[in-house]
Parts: sequence; C-alpha cells; structure tokens
Amino acid sequence: MRAAVTCLGRSAEASMNDIAQEAGVGRVTLYGHFPSREALVEAALIRLLAQGDEVLKTVDLTGDPRDALRTLMESGWLLIAQAASVLQAAQAALPPGRIQELHAKPEQRVHDLIRRGQTEGVFRADFPADLLASALHHIMHGAAVDVAAGRLGPTDAPRFVAEMALAVCLVPTAAARPRPAPE
Amino acid sequence: MRAAVTCLGRSAEASMNDIAQEAGVGRVTLYGHFPSREALVEAALIRLLAQGDEVLKTVDLTGDPRDALRTLMESGWLLIAQAASVLQAAQAALPPGRIQELHAKPEQRVHDLIRRGQTEGVFRADFPADLLASALHHIMHGAAVDVAAGRLGPTDAPRFVAEMALAVCLVPTAAARPRPAPE
Repeated sequence: MRAAVTCLGRSAEASMNDIAQEAGVGRVTLYGHFPSREALVEAALIRLLAQGDEVLKTVDLTGDPRDALRTLMESGWLLIAQAASVLQAAQAALPPGRIQELHAKPEQRVHDLIRRGQTEGVFRADFPADLLASALHHIMHGAAVDVAAGRLGPTDAPRFVAEMALAVCLVPTAAARPRPAPE
Repeated sequence: MRAAVTCLGRSAEASMNDIAQEAGVGRVTLYGHFPSREALVEAALIRLLAQGDEVLKTVDLTGDPRDALRTLMESGWLLIAQAASVLQAAQAALPPGRIQELHAKPEQRVHDLIRRGQTEGVFRADFPADLLASALHHIMHGAAVDVAAGRLGPTDAPRFVAEMALAVCLVPTAAARPRPAPE
C-alpha cells in the first residue's frame, strides 16, 4: 500500500510491476491483495483521503463563514497538490463519479460550512448546499488539471481556488441578476 | 461514425460489437477504420463538438457581456445535455485533459467573451481569461456529473450553470475581499 502511494506519487502511470518491485514482492503476491491496477489506485486514493482528513480535522472552521471557506479551500488545495500524481492516476483509472464518491468526508465538511453560511445569510441559499459543495469539488479538481496543463501556476493556485469558492458561494449582487429583456 | 454516435448516445458503455452491428459492418471492418474503442469514442466526440459549433456560431454574443455569458452557457448546456451519454463514454475512455483539448473552439468563444467583459470592466481581471474560461468548463462538465448523479435536476441545470458562470466572472464585491486578521 505504501509502495503504491510512493510509486503513483512519482508517476501517475506507475504499473503493477513498478509497485510490486518497490514493495519487494512478486506480481502474483500483489495481485493476491489487489485484483487489478484500478483496485490498487482506488486503495491508494482512499489512503491519501484518510490522511488528508486527519489534517482537515484540525482546521478551525468557526468564525466568519467566508474566512472559514477561504481557509478550508486553501488547506484542501495543499492536500490535492501533494496528491496530484495519485489523483491523476485515479482520474485515468476510475469511473468519473467514483473519485467524488470517495470524497464524502471532505465534501461533508464543505457542505456543513456552506449550510452554516446560508443560515447566517452570507452564502446564497437559492441552490442547495450539496450542489454548491459539488461545484467547489469540480473547481478544485479542475484547478489540478489547470496546474498540470500549465494554465495555472502552483503558487497562484491556492488564491485562485479560494476566490472561486467564495464567488460561487456568496449571495449574488445586483450585477448578477438577470435584467429584463429590452422592449 | 453515425452508428457510433447513435450507440454511444443510447449507452455510454456501447461496445465495438454494438457499434459494428448498428453500422451493419463486421468488427474487422470497424477496427480497420478505428484502431481502438478509445479512438472511436474520440471521433464521436469530435463529431458532436463540430455539430455543436454550428449551433453556437448562431448565438448572438453582442450586447452586455453578462447577458451574453448567460445565453452562451445556457446554449452550451443544451448541447452538453444532448451529448451527455457520449460525453460520459469519453470521460471514461479518454485521458482527463483530452476532452478539454477537444473543446478548443467553444473554449475560444467563452474566452473571447470573457476578455470583452474584462475590457469593459464588468468581469474580473485579476485572473487571466483562459483560467476563468477553464473554470467555466469544469463547472459545465461538473454539472453534467451532478445531473447523472441526481444532485441536479435537468430543468434546473441551465439556470445553475449560467448563475455559476456569472458568479465566477463578475468583479468580486467587498464581501469577497479578504478581511484583515483580528489583532
């Protein structure tokens, strides 16, 4: 398991052979534990998510929901950046909805914060919290694609994801309201 | 090609066999044209994107950039909704960045509109237009995942993507500015 995280962390294309070698076991032994590369990639992602949860657990999310959202997105981004290579392997190996399913715990954290912001009237309540949380998930993981594609610098990324998260969640201003069609 | 769009439109899991049968040709003939299922899925997506471009070409993007963005996102969403099943096949079969690469033409349209909005001072200019356009891409395709997962109703989806696009692009208000940490 540790070998999988190490190898996939070095290269998203690491093969079962590479991982068996790193772990010092034979391919047959490795396949005995994980029936396919997909299963192993999923297990590696689950491990990283559990470690990430230990970090996110310590983030103080009390106080102004806007500040808390900024902090949560920046902390979450650091974890995504560290896990970039494993995440890339997962995006290639797992079905589209699966990665999001595995994020239930961090999603719940974001969801609860959005709900609180909605109750306090700071975040928009015209869409359900789980839909806004999902939009933040897509922005986060989209930003990881943008970094990999060179559109977004790694140092600009935390500010970008925090700003986009706020933009998505804040109550829209008059400028965003649909104007009546001209007569 | 038409058989591929038909079959993948019915089911994202359509196999090479299904498609050969629909086209009334043998598997060998089909493999003669497309060396792999991945190549065929990519070709089907390219075909749908070209058809979509014919539609988007007719959308009037002059006038207030906010109205134009709303219109463009809603039109784009209709195309994505129609192509949902092929897109799902593509998300499973193609590498993560590839789908976005194939969207160069619609992305360019969004990009140009964002640039105009930035020049007119309506859209935020603290991030480059291509990064904002990419965020809209991720929101759009994320919304397609949300619809497939039942988190977003198909009739609410056009309004949701348009609202999210505006939220991302508009100049942020004072409420979104980071506040100084309490002393």
